[in-house]
Amino acid sequence: MTERWMSLERVARLWIVEAGDLIKEALKNPFDIDSKSDPDDLVTEVDRNTEAFFYHKIKENFPDHQFLGEEGVAKELQSLKGTVWIVDPIDGTMNFVHQQVNFSISVGIYEEGKGVVGLVYDVMNGELFHAVRDRGVFLNDRPLKQVTDRSISESILGLNANWLVEDHHQEHEGLVRLAQDCRGTRSYGSAAIEMAYVAADRLDAYISLRLSPWDYAGGAVLLEEAGCKATRLDGEELSMLEKGSMIACKPELHTTIVADYLEKG
Amino acid sequence: MTERWMSLERVARLWIVEAGDLIKEALKNPFDIDSKSDPDDLVTEVDRNTEAFFYHKIKENFPDHQFLGEEGVAKELQSLKGTVWIVDPIDGTMNFVHQQVNFSISVGIYEEGKGVVGLVYDVMNGELFHAVRDRGVFLNDRPLKQVTDRSISESILGLNANWLVEDHHQEHEGLVRLAQDCRGTRSYGSAAIEMAYVAADRLDAYISLRLSPWDYAGGAVLLEEAGCKATRLDGEELSMLEKGSMIACKPELHTTIVADYLEKG
Repeated sequence: MTERWMSLERVARLWIVEAGDLIKEALKNPFDIDSKSDPDDLVTEVDRNTEAFFYHKIKENFPDHQFLGEEGVAKELQSLKGTVWIVDPIDGTMNFVHQQVNFSISVGIYEEGKGVVGLVYDVMNGELFHAVRDRGVFLNDRPLKQVTDRSISESILGLNANWLVEDHHQEHEGLVRLAQDCRGTRSYGSAAIEMAYVAADRLDAYISLRLSPWDYAGGAVLLEEAGCKATRLDGEELSMLEKGSMIACKPELHTTIVADYLEKG
Repeated sequence: MTERWMSLERVARLWIVEAGDLIKEALKNPFDIDSKSDPDDLVTEVDRNTEAFFYHKIKENFPDHQFLGEEGVAKELQSLKGTVWIVDPIDGTMNFVHQQVNFSISVGIYEEGKGVVGLVYDVMNGELFHAVRDRGVFLNDRPLKQVTDRSISESILGLNANWLVEDHHQEHEGLVRLAQDCRGTRSYGSAAIEMAYVAADRLDAYISLRLSPWDYAGGAVLLEEAGCKATRLDGEELSMLEKGSMIACKPELHTTIVADYLEKG
């Protein structure tokens, strides 16, 4: 199986780099920006074109593979049977629109529901995080070193201020306490990059209350290969078909945060 | 005067790039880490060596210039008379230690208290933001386009969660309201980079309650040249000799945030 997964990863890497080049090219000209259900949920023609790029490449080369993407280019997915590509063409669209940096392309390839290839590409900073199941995790072909599990007081957490000022969710008190107890918090505005940062030992945990499968499908494979955990905030398994909360975390710290900050939250 | 400032900037740019190369070299080997007054206030031998690098270069080439740096290589400064170099050898030391990315070198050159050269170098991402008084602001030699002044609801703010969970300061209520009203918040862990991001129109404002002159001396020149403002949270002028709060901001948004969120805070 590993040979097959590595061959899939090679193809996916070619496409993700090509898609990144197309995005950089698109940034040279003005592009249309719309908002979705809420005015802060932005989408651009570049998101849609990038998703279509992946969809057509996959349909052409692997006609029996399934596709799940943020922008709905393919029809909705009902199950994870067979081989499924889960793609976020631009993770961090708000950064893409406002900053033209700090966004990523995320690709996860799943077989019968199991993640076998994960790619997160921080396009403008030129960092491609990549992993094949059972083969470890890499940054631009360099193997990442083993993560260090730190105590809360020495940890840096990816945590958006949004979850601390929105107080109508049950985790609010726990998250405020966590932000007070940790060494520091950061927020980059791309869930996929923040998950890759945990796998690369740049953050100790990343927490979000609302994410979709395309946000975390690629990152979850990176994390598993890095010896980290990615679950719902209650510790339950992530769903690749439904939205939900997520904590990506070093393994011991995961146990502590879920038990001492989230279950009591 | 402009010719003199441009010549100073050319020299400062050579040194800041050389210092960045020395830091990248230092990252290849383990380095000593200490903490200062509080356990989360980290300092490394790389911070100290980088500050000494600037101090000796300046003393050798400009013996009559004054020097103010974070690590106390020079004796404490009593006034801003003459030409003063204000240097943060590594802004974002916590990122430097934990991530080995997302830190910067900040250099501000002041004449009789007035900022004439500003440099912020995001070492690992290869972005050098630079400005000479009255000559505009640049990123890697490309002039930055004019900033866009947005409403609060369309703005992205650099604001660390720390200020939202520490509730014993008078701005707490105002900052929580601001975080609720804006489009999104980010936190990168380097004040100098976040100020440069405002000048580059990647953030609309950056707010911190506790900074030192070396954190903002370089960024303040970038902001002035970008047509933005950098003041204390009460709107008063920044001091280059004393610590304090800071808001770096687009001009109209600055008026709104100070009047509607901070003075009422």
